[in-house]
Amino acid sequence: MTSPHLKRLHHIDFVVRDLAAAAVRFGRVLGMEPGPRESLESRGVDLVRFRVGETWLILVQPTRSDSPVMEFLERHGEGFFHMAVEVDDVESAASALRARGVRLVNQTPRRGVEGWKLIDVAAEETPGAVLQLAEVEPE
Amino acid sequence: MTSPHLKRLHHIDFVVRDLAAAAVRFGRVLGMEPGPRESLESRGVDLVRFRVGETWLILVQPTRSDSPVMEFLERHGEGFFHMAVEVDDVESAASALRARGVRLVNQTPRRGVEGWKLIDVAAEETPGAVLQLAEVEPE
Repeated sequence: MTSPHLKRLHHIDFVVRDLAAAAVRFGRVLGMEPGPRESLESRGVDLVRFRVGETWLILVQPTRSDSPVMEFLERHGEGFFHMAVEVDDVESAASALRARGVRLVNQTPRRGVEGWKLIDVAAEETPGAVLQLAEVEPE
Repeated sequence: MTSPHLKRLHHIDFVVRDLAAAAVRFGRVLGMEPGPRESLESRGVDLVRFRVGETWLILVQPTRSDSPVMEFLERHGEGFFHMAVEVDDVESAASALRARGVRLVNQTPRRGVEGWKLIDVAAEETPGAVLQLAEVEPE
């Protein structure tokens, strides 16, 4: 099976109702100051990141009624949203997944913070979790 | 704030109903063979691990009606269970958390696979997620 190398677990997103309060609480447990509040207008969310090892832990709060994250929050409440594995080339990784019959949500990358190129794997492909492919600039 | 160094995101557990089927599906998406099926009798679970970067992705299926994971599965369905951050010394990390008022589920470590020493942070401390402290032998 030809597969792209998975470099790391790049980030995990958790949806919260009150970003400022959640960031303070996570910071207390992790023993870190929360990162700055960031906005991702294209998704209608604000977010705060924490760094653990090679992985970003990201708290996400929807800021608009038409945000896909608002729909999640209303349906499921607060909780795990998805996790992203880093690959060298997200479009070739997506092609490899399509070639073995894995369904993807978007065929061309959408953009995350810092220009991250993201392709979502359909939720039903990974029971119990939701996976995303990410291509990012070297840090 | 005195805080233990968080070395890495050590593992993330996802609860599934059918471990064998879920392992095949994750393997197809990740482009990896699933690890062997393992049992953790003390928790009443079977599990399969995948490795991405420095992190274990773990699929967990309860095998007994009195497993705490069975209770989770019946209440919430399949999904994210918790994630563990690695520290050098789990008991001193737990002390540091208690000292700043963070509630823990167990005060002395319980054992995971491979003798991992684990202390659970109370779920209400981290809105949207559940955190655990882990001390492990060097790999």
